[in-house]
This record gives sequence, structure tokens and C-alpha cells, in this order.
Amino acid sequence: MSFEFRTKRRVEFAETDMAGILHFSNYFRYMEETEHEFFRSLGLSVHMQIDGRVVSWPRVRTECAYSAPLAFEEYVEIHLLVRKKTKKSITYDYEFSKPGGSIVARGSVTTLCVTMDPTTKQMTSIPIPEPIDEKIQAAPVESLRS
Amino acid sequence: MSFEFRTKRRVEFAETDMAGILHFSNYFRYMEETEHEFFRSLGLSVHMQIDGRVVSWPRVRTECAYSAPLAFEEYVEIHLLVRKKTKKSITYDYEFSKPGGSIVARGSVTTLCVTMDPTTKQMTSIPIPEPIDEKIQAAPVESLRS
Amino acid sequence: MSFEFRTKRRVEFAETDMAGILHFSNYFRYMEETEHEFFRSLGLSVHMQIDGRVVSWPRVRTECAYSAPLAFEEYVEIHLLVRKKTKKSITYDYEFSKPGGSIVARGSVTTLCVTMDPTTKQMTSIPIPEPIDEKIQAAPVESLRS
Amino acid sequence: MSFEFRTKRRVEFAETDMAGILHFSNYFRYMEETEHEFFRSLGLSVHMQIDGRVVSWPRVRTECAYSAPLAFEEYVEIHLLVRKKTKKSITYDYEFSKPGGSIVARGSVTTLCVTMDPTTKQMTSIPIPEPIDEKIQAAPVESLRS
Repeated sequence: MSFEFRTKRRVEFAETDMAGILHFSNYFRYMEETEHEFFRSLGLSVHMQIDGRVVSWPRVRTECAYSAPLAFEEYVEIHLLVRKKTKKSITYDYEFSKPGGSIVARGSVTTLCVTMDPTTKQMTSIPIPEPIDEKIQAAPVESLRS
Repeated sequence: MSFEFRTKRRVEFAETDMAGILHFSNYFRYMEETEHEFFRSLGLSVHMQIDGRVVSWPRVRTECAYSAPLAFEEYVEIHLLVRKKTKKSITYDYEFSKPGGSIVARGSVTTLCVTMDPTTKQMTSIPIPEPIDEKIQAAPVESLRS
Repeated sequence: MSFEFRTKRRVEFAETDMAGILHFSNYFRYMEETEHEFFRSLGLSVHMQIDGRVVSWPRVRTECAYSAPLAFEEYVEIHLLVRKKTKKSITYDYEFSKPGGSIVARGSVTTLCVTMDPTTKQMTSIPIPEPIDEKIQAAPVESLRS
Repeated sequence: MSFEFRTKRRVEFAETDMAGILHFSNYFRYMEETEHEFFRSLGLSVHMQIDGRVVSWPRVRTECAYSAPLAFEEYVEIHLLVRKKTKKSITYDYEFSKPGGSIVARGSVTTLCVTMDPTTKQMTSIPIPEPIDEKIQAAPVESLRS
């Protein structure tokens, strides 16, 4: 059972904008990539077949607060924490910080577990399947950021 | 003085992901593009020179809640409303809806008015300059969504 | 039968990079979006069901030559020309120009007609289906750029 | 003096499209990121100050030929080779292959060395400055792919 994950990322040129900094929408891509790494670290995938059905995780709520910019080629450390887990959804908190220190952004993403019809793309919310459910848990209250 | 703007957008192929729907991070790009159209509709730009200084609008807080997916080539209508305006910042609310109706997402973005040194990229928060300040106002309370 | 299409596009903020200009990879997105508009203008879609099969158009070859940069909020006119059409593929030439004149880039994209299994994502090359084949033709030799 | 570089990349979810595969425009981002890693491996940056001027590398020509698709979470190995170096430009060849084997795409990018005015964004072609020139060389003829 796991409830956190750490990774790091270097800001790529195409991810900057004409203001010379990481475009704000890319923090959401970084959060998603961290979640996917977290899944892989547990032997899972965010887009996997379970019992013949495609199980996927559309986002239902996302947010980010930015306190300092990130420049091209800067490294950023990303800390994922499972804030909440319900029968059918997971909420992640993210902290972005410069190596060795200062926090530059904080985000949060709530994902819903669904099964998706490969032809019609119709999504139906389902309880988190056992192979995933048994590996991810909510962080203990004392590790949550206020 | 203006406090709202409406536009529409068609979902492009490269903006979808393997789940066959508009990638969630692109809603933030749509919000930003709508804000920029809003500025242009007032004869302004989000990246303009005023009194020899580059004035720009980094984001300090963004969020989005998704209630239904958008598929390739679908149209989405976007409604921008100026929720709040302070001496140095503007907060926008956004509503995404299918033509003729149902809401598919709601978002919010807070931007900060800064001047940016073109060489060092250093940003300094400033009061909204008059040419912009006199054209944008907060929506009256009764037009805000609860 | 049609062999050309014209559209225009405004450069968005998120499409620029820290050099302050449209990122070179986005010209390929613009080419693709123009192709898709071309299809729609003929009542077609690049991702459509024909006889119960998903017909799609993966790229087999792409190229672009850049002669001048494009800045944020600049307009660019895009001219698509069908250079070549074979039984199973279409090659498009693209010309990017500033309104009223000078050419800023030229590109070319070759696409292959395939049918795609919605579950396995396996692609199989097929002859261009009649509803598409009867609407698109190669440009006459005299309209091709040398 | 160096003329080649190898790296690898995992296909991210947001980089796929509704066809379930890596979007073709992202191969150009991968090529650029590999070039930037190559520069860093030599203690250089593609966007650096030399003698008080910003030296940058806009693209003048890019191309890619695709022979097989890449799926979400697949790894791809990227091999950069300096095909040609002139007084003011560098041309890179790229080979994309699956781990252990088969080639899935080949690309090529020609970049021009310029100095860029930080305020006007005006670019002027310049001879490759010595700190860069002395570290990068064209690959010997026998190592070039035909």
C-alpha cells in the first residue's frame, strides 16, 4: 500500500512561452505524468485492461496555485500525496519545489475510476478494481499539508 | 467598461488524447485564449508595452471542474466573466457548454498584473495600468454564478 | 472534386516559446488542422466510420522549411494544395504567409489511408474509400509550386 | 569534440491522440529535447549568453518519416548524429527505435546560429561562437546513414 511518490522534471524549451517561463498549463501535465509514474511504480497503468474492460481515470477537478516561475532547463521536484480515496475516486495533492527547497507551486487533482467502451468512448463510473484498490491508500492525516 | 466575453472553439485532433477526448490540460489553454480574445476585443493585448515597460499577466491560481467530456470536432462555447478585480489582479470565471446547452466544465483563473524585465525576466507586481484598468470591470453581483 | 483549401490562424500565447515566436512544432499542428478543415469543407472527417470501420490517416512523411518567424497574435494564412494522390495515400503541400504577402514557411505532409481496429489499435492500409476518393483530387500540374 | 548522442523517452498520455498513438508533431519535440540534452552533455545550452548576447538556434528545416506507431508508455530510443556543420548552421539526423531494435521513425533538423535582441526579438545569423564550435563536429562520413 502506497500513498506518496516523488519524481523530478527538467523544464523543456517547447514547454516555455514567450514570457520565458514554464507555461502554466504544463504544471497539469507534470501532475498527470507524476500520477502515471506513481501507478507504474506499483506495477499498474492508468489505462489498463481489467477483466476485459478498459479502466481509465478521467479528471473531475483540478487546481493549481503558483508562487514562483520556472525557467528553461530548471529542475523541479514533484511530490505526490494521496489526499483522499473513496470507493470510486482518488484525490492527489502535489507540491512543486526547486531542488533543495522553496516551493514554487501546489496543485490538486481528483480522478474518477471509469470503464470505457472502446468503440463508443462511453464512460461509466465504477468501484476501483481490486488490483488497483489494494495498492493505493490515502495518506495518514498527519502527513497531509494543511 | 466590459466584464464578459463569449467565444467558441472546435476541439482539434492534436488536443485529444488516447481516451478519445479533449485532454483536461487544454481547457486551461482555452481559458487563456478566451482571456486574450477578450483583451483584443477591447483594443488591448495581454503582452503589451506601456510607458516603455512590458506588462504581462502571470497566473497565480487556476482551477477547473469537468462534468462531461468533449470529443474531436465538437464545438464548445466559452463564457468569460470577470468575477473580481483588485488594484493588481483580475479573477475570471469560465463556463464551457455545448452549443445550445449543457454545461461541460467550469473554471476559474486569477491573474496578476506585472512588469517584466525583458532581459532578466524578473517580474514585479504593479497596479493595473490605466489603459487596461479603465476598460475592464468586475461583473455586477447579480450576474455572478453562485 | 477539390484540390485546395485556404484558412488562417492567429498565433496563440501557449504556442510561442521563450524565443518569443511560434514554436516550430506547431506549424505541423497548423498543417493538420488545415487538412481537417479541408475534409470538413467537403462534408468529410479525418476520423470517420465507413461501412462499420474506423478510417483514419496516419502521417508517413512530414517536412517544413521556415524562412521567417511568427510572433504572438500575428495572423498567418495557410494554403493547402493536394500535390499527389495515389490509391492509398494523399500528399499535401502547404504555404504559410503573412496577410497580404510574404511567405514565412512551406511544408508537406503525406498521409496514408488506414482502417483501425478500435480495440487493438492495429492499423491496416486500405484503398481510399469512395466517399472520400470521389471528393479529393490532385491539383493540376500547373498549380503546383516548383 | 562530439558528433552523436543517445537518449530515451517514454511516451506520455498527453502526447497521444485519439488514435491511441504518439501524435506525429511530438517527434519534433523529442528531436529538439535530444538536441538540448546533447548541448547540456557538452556543458552548453541552446539558449545561452555569450559575450553579452543571447545566442539561439531557430530551425530552418525539419522533416520526419514514420514507419511504425508508438503507444502510451512505450519507450523509444533516440539517436542523434551531427550530419553536417557549416560556419553558421548544424544539421542533425535522428533515428527513433524500439528498445533492442526496430526503427520506427527517422528525422532531420537544420538549425541556424543566431543572436537575438532580447527586446525586439530580431534575429541575426552569426558564425557559431567558439565555445560551441570547438565542442561539436560533423560525424565522419562512414557513420552517416545512407
